[in-house]
Amino acid sequence: MEEIPSAHAGLMANEVKRRWESFTPGGENNEGIPDPLDEICSYALTAPGKLFRPVLLLLSAESVGGRVADVLPAAVGTECGHVASLIHDDIIDGDAMRRGRPAVYRRYGMDNAIVAGDALLFQIFLCLAECRAAGVPDGRIVSAMEIVARAGVDLCRGQALEAEITSRSARDVRAYLRMVRLKTAALFSGACQAGAVLGGGPPEWVQALGEYGDALGIAFQIQDDLLGYVTDAGTTGKPATSDIKNRRLTLPIILAYEAGTARDRAVLDAALLGELAIDEALDAVGGVLRSTEAIARSTAMARTYTDRAAAALALLPASRGRDHLAGFVERTVSRVR
Amino acid sequence: MEEIPSAHAGLMANEVKRRWESFTPGGENNEGIPDPLDEICSYALTAPGKLFRPVLLLLSAESVGGRVADVLPAAVGTECGHVASLIHDDIIDGDAMRRGRPAVYRRYGMDNAIVAGDALLFQIFLCLAECRAAGVPDGRIVSAMEIVARAGVDLCRGQALEAEITSRSARDVRAYLRMVRLKTAALFSGACQAGAVLGGGPPEWVQALGEYGDALGIAFQIQDDLLGYVTDAGTTGKPATSDIKNRRLTLPIILAYEAGTARDRAVLDAALLGELAIDEALDAVGGVLRSTEAIARSTAMARTYTDRAAAALALLPASRGRDHLAGFVERTVSRVR
Repeated sequence: MEEIPSAHAGLMANEVKRRWESFTPGGENNEGIPDPLDEICSYALTAPGKLFRPVLLLLSAESVGGRVADVLPAAVGTECGHVASLIHDDIIDGDAMRRGRPAVYRRYGMDNAIVAGDALLFQIFLCLAECRAAGVPDGRIVSAMEIVARAGVDLCRGQALEAEITSRSARDVRAYLRMVRLKTAALFSGACQAGAVLGGGPPEWVQALGEYGDALGIAFQIQDDLLGYVTDAGTTGKPATSDIKNRRLTLPIILAYEAGTARDRAVLDAALLGELAIDEALDAVGGVLRSTEAIARSTAMARTYTDRAAAALALLPASRGRDHLAGFVERTVSRVR
Repeated sequence: MEEIPSAHAGLMANEVKRRWESFTPGGENNEGIPDPLDEICSYALTAPGKLFRPVLLLLSAESVGGRVADVLPAAVGTECGHVASLIHDDIIDGDAMRRGRPAVYRRYGMDNAIVAGDALLFQIFLCLAECRAAGVPDGRIVSAMEIVARAGVDLCRGQALEAEITSRSARDVRAYLRMVRLKTAALFSGACQAGAVLGGGPPEWVQALGEYGDALGIAFQIQDDLLGYVTDAGTTGKPATSDIKNRRLTLPIILAYEAGTARDRAVLDAALLGELAIDEALDAVGGVLRSTEAIARSTAMARTYTDRAAAALALLPASRGRDHLAGFVERTVSRVR
């Protein structure tokens, strides 16, 4: 997903940037008393991201006949929610860098990072309320609120499930898919559904776009797992060093475990439990991945979900918005970073 | 605030308890895959709290002529939001115990505590959406969403400001009042306004209840500060050991600093910067508090805000709900724990 193929990306980048800067705290003149939260949230929001989720919301609204200008605040809110989850994720994963700069918790401390993430979660709904001034009917806004809040709870369920799966080294493709659906696809699907509802789409189109987002999100995450196994020069067939060091359970590993022999499993266990030197582990895991054809099978699984996303889009009438959404499907499985 | 003087408290306790237990993740059958978030959120929600914020919401709805049953889900959401802030606060403050049990982060780890707090923030809005099924018009729900989201952002501003004030040991009554207004009073005021809006109150009653909640919240926090200076046997005139150890800036200390002589300030600095042994610090600070009459002046300031809360209520028509709200005003300044 190198580039969002749409004029919406530039629009979103400006809107998100201006969001926190233009925000003034409610009900009080602060009379020169510092407001440290503003600086922290601006820092988090102004780093350039892919803006993928807000653009999904805009295009979903467009593809059901809605106007981009009406749902722009809600799209900004979607990005606030995504950034909030990144801020909290970085604390949890101990990732020091984010988007080429120190993570919020490294720059401002963990306490401020927790609070800034919380503030950006509330911003989702403050943004959503602004759609009223843009002329969106209240009934649509309430429906979008429910969709977004449910996606948020699902995201949290996915994060808790990921921690649980990792802690017991579960290698179970069903549990993996449930985790990915909750952790990644729920926000994709929520952004699509919210856009469709705010844009005034009928229930069957809202549902189709929800299925599109769900399938796209799962394909996106599988591809993310696969990126560890490829370089600019092509597929390496070996896992990424960082995935092995972090004992991250990626789909290729899970499929290799399920398809492998007892000996293959013993090799994977040893490598993932840190019982082998890193070079030895990379070679050993690479060998099992090849013999079980786990990379090819993961790629095929991603393709299943992109097919499903494309099929969901076919339920919508032809439009420029739908064309852009279809473009995402192909890019998801061909992206290299 | 030993007891909420209302039948609503029992009702709320049941509703909050059942909330997470009855909640099922959206859109998928989990087929025996564990859902660790449920257990963590249930743990956090089922500890008995004062349920003060949700009861404020119910009584505010009642006092403008609304029905308790219609706004019950929103009240449950208010408690979810309060519990979320406690979960995150306990991580930030390093408080090991909450409501007589280990804090969530002590029981389930920091990572899970961050995620569980996030989930409960989203629950605020999922609860709010349920008011639709109870028959509340969409327009009121959107207004309530905006009020609650703004209160949430203000709460975060207050937490960030508190950290900033504490780190530079600022002793400034204006900054203190702004911090208290954001950190404590915003949620009180938000709960009251949300109840009034959902209950169908006209703008002037919504505003009056917002002012009531704001003033009550400030008085509540000042009283909380004062609790460190009293025992069951009466006012000690000395600060609490934990407040001195944590270098917590309470209103009596701030007023003593502003009213004291240069020598008084030097004594307070030495005590609060940990340069004195704890017993010596307690005696020294106690002496300055007495000579500056800081406790009496803090009590008087709390009384100013309870008077303001009572005056705001006088703008509403007489009702049982209003009587209960008036009862809270008196209890706020007379509570001993």
